[in-house]
Amino acid sequence: MWVEEKAKPESNRRTVGMRQHFVNGLVYCTGDMMHFSQYMEDKAFIFQLFEWSMRGVARVILANNPLSGVLILGALVWASPWQALLGTLGLLTSTLTAVIIGQDSEEVSGGLHGFNGMLVSLLMGVCSSAGDWYWWLLLPVFLGGATSTFLYSGLAPLLDKWDLPVAVFPFNMVILLYLACTGSSNPYYPHHPATPLGELESNATQLSLTQLLQGVPLGVGQIYACEDLGPSVLILGATLLYSPLLGSHALLGSGAGTLAGLSVSVRHGALYSGLSGFNGALGCMAVGGLFFTFNWRTHLFSIASAFLSAYADIALSNLLGTVGLPACSWAATLTATLMLLLTGRSLSAYRIPTGRVMAPEQNIRCHSQWAARETTDSTDV
Amino acid sequence: MWVEEKAKPESNRRTVGMRQHFVNGLVYCTGDMMHFSQYMEDKAFIFQLFEWSMRGVARVILANNPLSGVLILGALVWASPWQALLGTLGLLTSTLTAVIIGQDSEEVSGGLHGFNGMLVSLLMGVCSSAGDWYWWLLLPVFLGGATSTFLYSGLAPLLDKWDLPVAVFPFNMVILLYLACTGSSNPYYPHHPATPLGELESNATQLSLTQLLQGVPLGVGQIYACEDLGPSVLILGATLLYSPLLGSHALLGSGAGTLAGLSVSVRHGALYSGLSGFNGALGCMAVGGLFFTFNWRTHLFSIASAFLSAYADIALSNLLGTVGLPACSWAATLTATLMLLLTGRSLSAYRIPTGRVMAPEQNIRCHSQWAARETTDSTDV
Amino acid sequence: MWVEEKAKPESNRRTVGMRQHFVNGLVYCTGDMMHFSQYMEDKAFIFQLFEWSMRGVARVILANNPLSGVLILGALVWASPWQALLGTLGLLTSTLTAVIIGQDSEEVSGGLHGFNGMLVSLLMGVCSSAGDWYWWLLLPVFLGGATSTFLYSGLAPLLDKWDLPVAVFPFNMVILLYLACTGSSNPYYPHHPATPLGELESNATQLSLTQLLQGVPLGVGQIYACEDLGPSVLILGATLLYSPLLGSHALLGSGAGTLAGLSVSVRHGALYSGLSGFNGALGCMAVGGLFFTFNWRTHLFSIASAFLSAYADIALSNLLGTVGLPACSWAATLTATLMLLLTGRSLSAYRIPTGRVMAPEQNIRCHSQWAARETTDSTDV
Repeated sequence: MWVEEKAKPESNRRTVGMRQHFVNGLVYCTGDMMHFSQYMEDKAFIFQLFEWSMRGVARVILANNPLSGVLILGALVWASPWQALLGTLGLLTSTLTAVIIGQDSEEVSGGLHGFNGMLVSLLMGVCSSAGDWYWWLLLPVFLGGATSTFLYSGLAPLLDKWDLPVAVFPFNMVILLYLACTGSSNPYYPHHPATPLGELESNATQLSLTQLLQGVPLGVGQIYACEDLGPSVLILGATLLYSPLLGSHALLGSGAGTLAGLSVSVRHGALYSGLSGFNGALGCMAVGGLFFTFNWRTHLFSIASAFLSAYADIALSNLLGTVGLPACSWAATLTATLMLLLTGRSLSAYRIPTGRVMAPEQNIRCHSQWAARETTDSTDV
Repeated sequence: MWVEEKAKPESNRRTVGMRQHFVNGLVYCTGDMMHFSQYMEDKAFIFQLFEWSMRGVARVILANNPLSGVLILGALVWASPWQALLGTLGLLTSTLTAVIIGQDSEEVSGGLHGFNGMLVSLLMGVCSSAGDWYWWLLLPVFLGGATSTFLYSGLAPLLDKWDLPVAVFPFNMVILLYLACTGSSNPYYPHHPATPLGELESNATQLSLTQLLQGVPLGVGQIYACEDLGPSVLILGATLLYSPLLGSHALLGSGAGTLAGLSVSVRHGALYSGLSGFNGALGCMAVGGLFFTFNWRTHLFSIASAFLSAYADIALSNLLGTVGLPACSWAATLTATLMLLLTGRSLSAYRIPTGRVMAPEQNIRCHSQWAARETTDSTDV
Repeated sequence: MWVEEKAKPESNRRTVGMRQHFVNGLVYCTGDMMHFSQYMEDKAFIFQLFEWSMRGVARVILANNPLSGVLILGALVWASPWQALLGTLGLLTSTLTAVIIGQDSEEVSGGLHGFNGMLVSLLMGVCSSAGDWYWWLLLPVFLGGATSTFLYSGLAPLLDKWDLPVAVFPFNMVILLYLACTGSSNPYYPHHPATPLGELESNATQLSLTQLLQGVPLGVGQIYACEDLGPSVLILGATLLYSPLLGSHALLGSGAGTLAGLSVSVRHGALYSGLSGFNGALGCMAVGGLFFTFNWRTHLFSIASAFLSAYADIALSNLLGTVGLPACSWAATLTATLMLLLTGRSLSAYRIPTGRVMAPEQNIRCHSQWAARETTDSTDV
């Protein structure tokens, strides 16, 4: 794989060796890190739980890499320690609920039962108008985390008939139920009512290009309900570590979402904060490389998916905004599901079965191996 | 089965005999009473229709016993003769529609095509603001009863893919369509707009514990849209006659629903009238003993299901309340469906196939028989 | 097939011959015109695309006949050239999108990928408050047309599990998303908010019977969002050309819808413009002859379906009207889907598998041929 370096002067040998080590280390840390899971198999439960949780953290942004998870958790602590605490508790609650109700252990160790609970608790914290360190919020965080696992477990057989992933459907359902249940002026759990993306602004100002461009990386951070530039860039970095392809699609999708927002003149605040971009980012990532082998066709489809997610998000935000609810990531989840169902051969030919999905780079390698094997087989016959 | 009583003095024999007769009679009247169905098989159509209808009445509260149906119908007449008349007409309409459109005769004789129509007409009566004995209401009652059978018949193949029961989905759809169709200020069919559970009260008074405790049995009565204590207790009695396990889960679930309502401070009227409890009761009954073999694990799940139903009901009530519609029993129906879909082995191992569901007590007996047989089989091999 | 006319005087021969030619021509032009598709097979792509598109135009009203499509397009040009242009562009966009993303070529040539795009663009034009010849509207028309093909392609495997047609679900989804996305006061794409059917009228006038009767044929035209009497009658004529049975069910259903509207007192404007009738027409056509063999039983079911569609449309219109959205043809689509799922033997026995659906008259002929063959087979054995 790596170019052999034979005829090099002695003095360069050490530098080359170090560079080699660094490259090897980087290769070790990228992708799905399945070797790390094998290494952890005989360790204590607490260490295993840590690995599952970190995979769960990364799963929110469609990555499956414990190191990315650690980096993202760091970004969340940087942005707001209270939010990071809530997220961790939601994550642990839903993972442990899955263990208790007897879910498939492979799913649990892949972090599949954690990310919905984490998102639920992060959103509970962001929407709450009771301020940080309002400890009563832990009650709904525990309940919401457990409920999201219930929903994950119940939706799986429904969606499995079409080989569809459960994705973040449970998160979207639980958070809407929680917000609708408490209402904006609840005496125990008050929250800010959501503002529709399409709301007219009374004092419309000139559009600022700098802030608009900042909105693109912020759209990646908004996947974790994070509105600060630094942590958002760190989250983007963690995604790039898992897979450069996935990370660049995240940026691309966020940009497409911002363009879509501009085209129907959503309020400027949503463009600047990345709110109009994050659904585009998720929609673009799912199609570009993750659930489909990457090539120029699926790349075009991923852009279409990004725009579709973004427009659908604006529509749902306007609809749900009339009752004060946010649109969360319904749009991206539904659009990605639609793309997975598409029967057109230009896309469906590159569909990867849900159970075999790996990091985009590995997907390409596996696909070319299959193709090579199939060619050999047909030549033999 | 029953303890033999041999060495008893002569004088006690008669009392014992009478007690024995009474016990035998009670055993005869509890459970699914399948022997009664067999006895009715060669009787005139009108008597058979009566048995099917009474089973249909009881099916609303998940019981399948004609005697429970008679008791419940009595309770409804006690509470309001007009409501009982509407319920009976809706029940007959939907049952006869099922006969006419050629539904499976076994389903019809089990009362499966009656309870949705009955609920639709009961709710039409309760929501109507035109007062009792408003005869024009019979028109939508007939139409609604027939439509609920159409929906039952159409939803069955959809849900059958996952071995799910149709339950009260048709009722929930038809009543929402009717209320949305007529609107609150319709000149022919006016109705009271529904009040969301979470609505803020301007003159909040001290919570009355007596009324709160009364709300628990009233929650069982609210399943039939009945708000009086006496009839509610009679309905609870009818459920206990069918199955003591199911009846106690109804009370337990209603209590859990009331607690859930307290925790997010729903309006006091809803707590007192049992409105916040009835979804909890239904959710608890479905999981505790009916669709799952009763044991301490499923018992815990039934409590979780009760709380989940109650919270989901508050959320849906707040959402649908913005357009003046009631949440009916959507929450319990969806939660029970979710529980039936759950893949976690702690629950799914005790799932009873929909076609084999009987009274909870019989479910336990059958399950232990299967377990015994399986043990014998594996020992033989 | 045709009565032989031998012993006729010479002078009559020519008239008879001409009449014969006319009848043959009419027979050639009615029904599915599959021979025309075979004739077109080796023609240039542009002619084939024309045939596919004309079939697509007719598919909106459940017909599958290129000549009907030409007539209907003529009616649209007559009513509004701008609308006809929009419709054609939407039609072409969605058909070409289907070709590009590699959909099944048989579906494309049957016009199945065109009618949703056409409806989307027609509704975009009707709802727009920016006036005719507002060229910026072409952008959403292109996007909407492409998206409707994506949705058609994605919904097909979902609905295929129950052998259900995709019908106009994509249109209904895309147009709601578009209208919710832009909102009524969007600076680029403003539109009229929809008025609920059940809205109370302040100055209620005497009902005009003439206008009410005009509403019945207008209900057929409303399927293409056309509100003029002349073009509506031409559209009805095009449907009668495809199949007299289908055309008469369209009128019958529109009448039933108007009656349903009267019974819950919808606003007079909706009755006069045919808005309360068009869902009834669609619901009636789907059941009466198209997806079920025509006989007196399915005829009764088709009337039930018409009423159900109409009532459901009023309910959905009131619900969606609270957020300013129209109910489109959700009601008819859902009702027809429900009817296709119905398990009652009185209806399901006459169900024609989706892949074998032809013009109603041909359905009857095929059904009697099968019945005859089955009788022969069973006699032989």
